[in-house]
Amino acid sequence: MRMSRYFLPVTKETPAHAEIISHQLMLRTGMIKQHSAGIYSWLPLGLKVLQKIEAIVRQEQNRSGALEVLMPTMQGADLWRESGRYDAYGAEMLRITDRHERDLLFGPTAEEVVTDIFRNHVRSYKELPLNLYNIQWKFRDEVRPRFGVMRGREFLMKDAYSFDLDETGARDAYRKMFLAYLKTFQRLGLKAVPMRADTGPIGGDLSHEFLVLAPTGESGVYYDAIYDETDWASLDISFDNTPKARAARAETVDRIVKAYAATDEIHDEVRFNAEVTPDRRRTGRGIEVGHIFFFGTKYSAPMHAKVVGPDGKDCLVQMGSYGIGVSRLVGAIIEASHDEHGIIWPDAVAPYDVGIISLRAGDSLVDGTCEQAYQTLLNAGLDPLYDDRDDRPGAKFATMDLIGVPNQLIVGPKGLVAGLVEVKDRKSGAKVEMPLESALACLSTKAPA
Amino acid sequence: MRMSRYFLPVTKETPAHAEIISHQLMLRTGMIKQHSAGIYSWLPLGLKVLQKIEAIVRQEQNRSGALEVLMPTMQGADLWRESGRYDAYGAEMLRITDRHERDLLFGPTAEEVVTDIFRNHVRSYKELPLNLYNIQWKFRDEVRPRFGVMRGREFLMKDAYSFDLDETGARDAYRKMFLAYLKTFQRLGLKAVPMRADTGPIGGDLSHEFLVLAPTGESGVYYDAIYDETDWASLDISFDNTPKARAARAETVDRIVKAYAATDEIHDEVRFNAEVTPDRRRTGRGIEVGHIFFFGTKYSAPMHAKVVGPDGKDCLVQMGSYGIGVSRLVGAIIEASHDEHGIIWPDAVAPYDVGIISLRAGDSLVDGTCEQAYQTLLNAGLDPLYDDRDDRPGAKFATMDLIGVPNQLIVGPKGLVAGLVEVKDRKSGAKVEMPLESALACLSTKAPA
Repeated sequence: MRMSRYFLPVTKETPAHAEIISHQLMLRTGMIKQHSAGIYSWLPLGLKVLQKIEAIVRQEQNRSGALEVLMPTMQGADLWRESGRYDAYGAEMLRITDRHERDLLFGPTAEEVVTDIFRNHVRSYKELPLNLYNIQWKFRDEVRPRFGVMRGREFLMKDAYSFDLDETGARDAYRKMFLAYLKTFQRLGLKAVPMRADTGPIGGDLSHEFLVLAPTGESGVYYDAIYDETDWASLDISFDNTPKARAARAETVDRIVKAYAATDEIHDEVRFNAEVTPDRRRTGRGIEVGHIFFFGTKYSAPMHAKVVGPDGKDCLVQMGSYGIGVSRLVGAIIEASHDEHGIIWPDAVAPYDVGIISLRAGDSLVDGTCEQAYQTLLNAGLDPLYDDRDDRPGAKFATMDLIGVPNQLIVGPKGLVAGLVEVKDRKSGAKVEMPLESALACLSTKAPA
Repeated sequence: MRMSRYFLPVTKETPAHAEIISHQLMLRTGMIKQHSAGIYSWLPLGLKVLQKIEAIVRQEQNRSGALEVLMPTMQGADLWRESGRYDAYGAEMLRITDRHERDLLFGPTAEEVVTDIFRNHVRSYKELPLNLYNIQWKFRDEVRPRFGVMRGREFLMKDAYSFDLDETGARDAYRKMFLAYLKTFQRLGLKAVPMRADTGPIGGDLSHEFLVLAPTGESGVYYDAIYDETDWASLDISFDNTPKARAARAETVDRIVKAYAATDEIHDEVRFNAEVTPDRRRTGRGIEVGHIFFFGTKYSAPMHAKVVGPDGKDCLVQMGSYGIGVSRLVGAIIEASHDEHGIIWPDAVAPYDVGIISLRAGDSLVDGTCEQAYQTLLNAGLDPLYDDRDDRPGAKFATMDLIGVPNQLIVGPKGLVAGLVEVKDRKSGAKVEMPLESALACLSTKAPA
């Protein structure tokens, strides 16, 4: 992308109403524009990051064997009356009446809709296990929306729903998602700690939250240092449905959750002190980016979602649900990765792989070199952002750092006299002069896998 | 994908309430499930097609220089009051009150929201031309939703909005979209005819609809045979902003629209008869899949969307908007491409490239051959669907034809004795026996470009 043809409305001023750094930076970089309280438009830079996160979440859901569907945003109230949640959900549910006076609602979650799909189409235990997920906009009418996309009203969520014949199967489905989540957050460049949690309005008796550590997190967290020390990338997970793979998943998850980790909602100080030696106790604050639940027959019982079991008898299906806050992750990543100059995107979610900064647009040697670099990087499978505008170098450096492009190529007339360009690493700030050919070879190694 | 792990709830019965063939086939193939009137869940097969269409629409919008954003589904009523459309829009607009008694609505279109983004962020004519598009779910509360996704209430639309300094620029923006649309529909395997149209509630004085010919179309169409004869794939379009490229676009579009083509809304029988010789008159019915509008300052004037012009004076921006019915296209493609056995997907939007049919699951030679074929096709960049279930061959053939997989590989124990498998073309029904190696080489040529 050439900046002269892009829509990147960056601003210098820090918006007064934005309380936390991710909200400030998302507004300053022109990633989002507030439409009304808790409702945002995603501008090109923000949408690109959101789509990269979405793609990684999708890949890891598919890898786990979950199947993608798409449920509507507008849900009929009838199913929620069946499950008993229509009255229970409270004022966070946006209730709507259509032109025929039928009650609709903007889905805050989709247990009812997916259970209805299941009971209409699945008859036999032979079709299990089944896990259906979707990545869809949700709405929760927060009393006081704030922190930008971190606590908005309209937000993008990945929500998966598992269906199994029995509790053993359902707990395996839960473990598959648990492990897929660790891999997902690791690929997003995040350290997310799984913590036992309350089940809240979803219900059930087993639940974990995944929290990214950041001082602005909404929850206090208490955990064993082992979670800081473990690299989930090294987890070798099979999602096959063989007894061996199931046993391996159970063993792995049990090993991980054995160590203490809890949010302040259910933190047990006595247990924490008993189980974790003082030097290994970690406390802080965390941002919830994922939440998984096993809730058995909470929805299948009132909604009569049954399959015929191996014994020929009807059997209520065992369910769980599994959420990732996709739009919230954009804010969470910024909270976890920024400095005084702006955002530092992890490579996997950076909106552009390489920024090309022309220090003198209009100079034919500089223009030609930048153009050559731009085409070479495109051909190498990279996604470069070329600042071809006629602007001060200082402003260009500041913008490229502000929006967090991880690798930068700086091309100026003085360097070119000596045949040199500069390669800069956004995170460390380190700059190295080298010939163009070396710079392009070096940057080409940053192509996404 | 292995069918044994897929969720493909096909049914034999034709649903009684589905009046048109696309609606019947989408229900029978388990592409969608109705949630409530005009509101559907997209099941895995349907979503895959929807996503393929979405990707092609996105690529051609990007190629034209339009920039992707994402506007919220929930819009505040205030902007619509500013434009004057809040009262004008009528009962099709789903109106909502949130917990703080503020008026919201589920966006049926987004002229107001995008104009608000523009006026907040763009100051100078130097930032023009600008075209912002998004692919987002919309809602129109149709009195009588029917025909499945063809006239649903919640539907996926690509809507683009152009901003230019003057009418000359705006008309060029219009032509860019006109040409991008021809390319888009051609890539989707459709013959779409551009027709002069009424502007309706969007407003403005210039508008074209793009219609796919099908007997179930909602509009009568009258056009010159040249539209049937022209292959838009041969159009060589540059989207550069040079004077030369602009002139070429004007010349090309003028040449195309010179020939008569109109929907019954504005059809002029006298002109049709005068301009088109009898042997070249074509009439029929068409499904609207795209609609483009130039409307000048209809929104920029009441909403005060201005830029500073080259003369230093404020100038109202000239706008147009450009829609493609992405979810409707799924139905339109089926209407245009099916036979008595089911759907015939054009290659570009087929949910799977190759179907592998095992005629005897459990036979080790058949299993091994299918598995080898599956892996080879995956490695060749194809997306195969492997029917590995223990089911009757007849049922497997019927399902693969019903869901319209364009290329099929049939592997049975008898053929393997002679070292042969069968390759079948869904559209023609032609089957050819050949050695596995030849079959895989032949099918590998079907890999997407």
